[in-house]
Amino acid sequence: MNRTLIKDVAPGENVRLQGFVDACRNKKSIAFIVLRDITGKMQVTVDKNATPQLSEVVDKITHDSVITVVGDVVENSYVKLNGIELVAKEIRLESIAEPLPIDENSFPELKMDYRWIELRSEKNQLIFKVQTQIANSMRQFLLQNNFLEIHTPKLIGAASESGAEVFALDYFGSKAYLAQSPQFYKQMAMASGFERIFEVGPVFRAEKSNTNKHTTEFTGFDLEMSYINSFEDVMRIEQDMLTYMLAEVKEKYGEEIKRLYDVDVVVPDKPFPVMDLKDVYTELAKRYDYHVDASEMGDLTTEAERLCLKLAKDMYDSEFLFITGYSAEKRAFYHMRDANGVPLGYDLIWKGVEITTGAQREHRYEILAKQAAEKGLGEDIKHYMEFFRYGCPPHGGFGIGLDRITMMLFNLTIKDVMFLFRGPSRLTP
Amino acid sequence: MNRTLIKDVAPGENVRLQGFVDACRNKKSIAFIVLRDITGKMQVTVDKNATPQLSEVVDKITHDSVITVVGDVVENSYVKLNGIELVAKEIRLESIAEPLPIDENSFPELKMDYRWIELRSEKNQLIFKVQTQIANSMRQFLLQNNFLEIHTPKLIGAASESGAEVFALDYFGSKAYLAQSPQFYKQMAMASGFERIFEVGPVFRAEKSNTNKHTTEFTGFDLEMSYINSFEDVMRIEQDMLTYMLAEVKEKYGEEIKRLYDVDVVVPDKPFPVMDLKDVYTELAKRYDYHVDASEMGDLTTEAERLCLKLAKDMYDSEFLFITGYSAEKRAFYHMRDANGVPLGYDLIWKGVEITTGAQREHRYEILAKQAAEKGLGEDIKHYMEFFRYGCPPHGGFGIGLDRITMMLFNLTIKDVMFLFRGPSRLTP
Repeated sequence: MNRTLIKDVAPGENVRLQGFVDACRNKKSIAFIVLRDITGKMQVTVDKNATPQLSEVVDKITHDSVITVVGDVVENSYVKLNGIELVAKEIRLESIAEPLPIDENSFPELKMDYRWIELRSEKNQLIFKVQTQIANSMRQFLLQNNFLEIHTPKLIGAASESGAEVFALDYFGSKAYLAQSPQFYKQMAMASGFERIFEVGPVFRAEKSNTNKHTTEFTGFDLEMSYINSFEDVMRIEQDMLTYMLAEVKEKYGEEIKRLYDVDVVVPDKPFPVMDLKDVYTELAKRYDYHVDASEMGDLTTEAERLCLKLAKDMYDSEFLFITGYSAEKRAFYHMRDANGVPLGYDLIWKGVEITTGAQREHRYEILAKQAAEKGLGEDIKHYMEFFRYGCPPHGGFGIGLDRITMMLFNLTIKDVMFLFRGPSRLTP
Repeated sequence: MNRTLIKDVAPGENVRLQGFVDACRNKKSIAFIVLRDITGKMQVTVDKNATPQLSEVVDKITHDSVITVVGDVVENSYVKLNGIELVAKEIRLESIAEPLPIDENSFPELKMDYRWIELRSEKNQLIFKVQTQIANSMRQFLLQNNFLEIHTPKLIGAASESGAEVFALDYFGSKAYLAQSPQFYKQMAMASGFERIFEVGPVFRAEKSNTNKHTTEFTGFDLEMSYINSFEDVMRIEQDMLTYMLAEVKEKYGEEIKRLYDVDVVVPDKPFPVMDLKDVYTELAKRYDYHVDASEMGDLTTEAERLCLKLAKDMYDSEFLFITGYSAEKRAFYHMRDANGVPLGYDLIWKGVEITTGAQREHRYEILAKQAAEKGLGEDIKHYMEFFRYGCPPHGGFGIGLDRITMMLFNLTIKDVMFLFRGPSRLTP
């Protein structure tokens, strides 16, 4: 007999259900079990007079034990859960749970020790259903737009970009590093004539910071595309991809997200508003009396970033805001610059948090070498520099954190939305 | 003016093309350029009398330089490439290529040093178009079957499964390891009630072996599912997923694979044949006079594996063969065993190469602890063992290498099909 999911159960049927025991009230002549699977909950009723052989197994059932139940689905207006119950004929105890080591009131670190138990709730499972949808929608959008999916090595021979904040390891007697981003390799794909690629994979940051946004390992969603006319083509692809994704998420999970998290999924209007960084500071001063020190003018401060939630709302009624015109000092050496030395790139702010840096890349060897030298880079980018010597199309791209998008969508912290969080003092389970 | 892809070019149009210079014959009054983009090749003709201003740029063009060309598409029956050519009106040199450091006859290791140049060929690009399709088809099949996609940490606190062949690194003063597989975490997802999950991500093996099949880092495609009745449910999902994928690959790329690699993509019949390991050895002896030492009876030797190509063909006219009945000694401690101690799992052989190990897992804490102790495992699996103490559904799953599937599909080696290969002496580019 095949298993039926709780959401598919209908009165009058004889079914086989499987799931965790959400609750069990075991009385003398009757027992009420609330069974939970990934699609919902249902009451299972055991009539001990009618089925005395089930008493023994019911006595063994504990909270979060896993059982298989066969029985008849009947309507019962006294039952709170959808007015139906399963009258059990057979119960099989698949796994007995010891008393759970955490509950809602446990300390956060203890909850993280037992993360898999915490993940059993409907609220937490929704996060991963939605994250599956986010990744799939973005991938489908890109595949429809002629992108290829690649998988680049995470074990690399030189510390990428800069020596700071990289994990190092012994590699058969020599030294290897864990990739901080697929940046160099997705650009290599452009030099390979792949034209449009994306990658979804882990990125590693040896940062000793404990914030609500940072982690030492997360899932990056990166893309790169050739033959762009300017970085505005990159912004357009990102905007279109996110809009496509949010429309699909809203359609499939909008109601559940509203019900469980009280968050409205907003499908943005296009085009997203774009502001120059200088104008952002002018408006922040004018509207909210926020004044930034002249030394920080070339970059967006965390406080200014937060205020952009309000600014984007007030000026454009938008959750999203593209900001351009960052200073070359604050940007990576591989960003292409205009005649005035301004990087041809952008940040995308969503609900007051930066979720992306994107740019056109410098593909001309001599200029790139000069920009690298300015930042003091040499040996570490030796292999990377080679990509530009034998023909390379003009190109650009961006990276976005899958966990960060999920976090912003739900208005949660990074720890809330990761299957297993990794931080400086967290390597388990 | 928007870019047109070469495959979309039609006579009579004025178009803008962009790509690599595949060849250039530069004569006194005329130049012929073969332009290559990811969709094909096309002749570009420069009439130096009609457009003298283009002479200067044409003189600079080298093999594999990147150019943008605007011009008119005209029919010309003398042109071998589809009988059409682009008569250039404007040419822009985007990137000048230095003389290429490799050609077809270069040593393999030198080719790997310049892997991105090697990847520019139509033949090599097809591999990654097909790999994109393989991953996408398998994902879509699983999403249609209610699987969630998860992303588990690659930085782990204990060497998984066994201490051997694991990369170790310093993690803020303590020790971390790189995950050899997501095995423990996909089982954790079952204990979390996720019911059905898959993951596509890198796995790391510190193996100092140099074969055509091995690499220190590859892309794993792993899945796990709860509430199975036996490992046969796992086999069925794998068989259905691979059949679905191969049908899509054949439909979209079958002709190109045949043309460029002379390989027929075969969509298998279902169900795949299943044999017990003992019967495999009996048949190998009877049919091909292959005799294995009694001490190796519980496992499939590499030679026997290879012979399974012929065996599956001769007995079942199949490229695929499931083999069951391996001995417990040769299998991981977490495989569930039957009453006789035989693991409830299987290997899948495709064209004489093992591509998967799958099994029902032991979810009962006491039995699992006993099996782990038999293999001498303790401290390393301390956190893993916890997953089974607080309720865990019966479950099973398998893992398959994306690179390995690609390699088997094209009848190539692992180095041929990886974007960037990683081996004991290969960490660059």
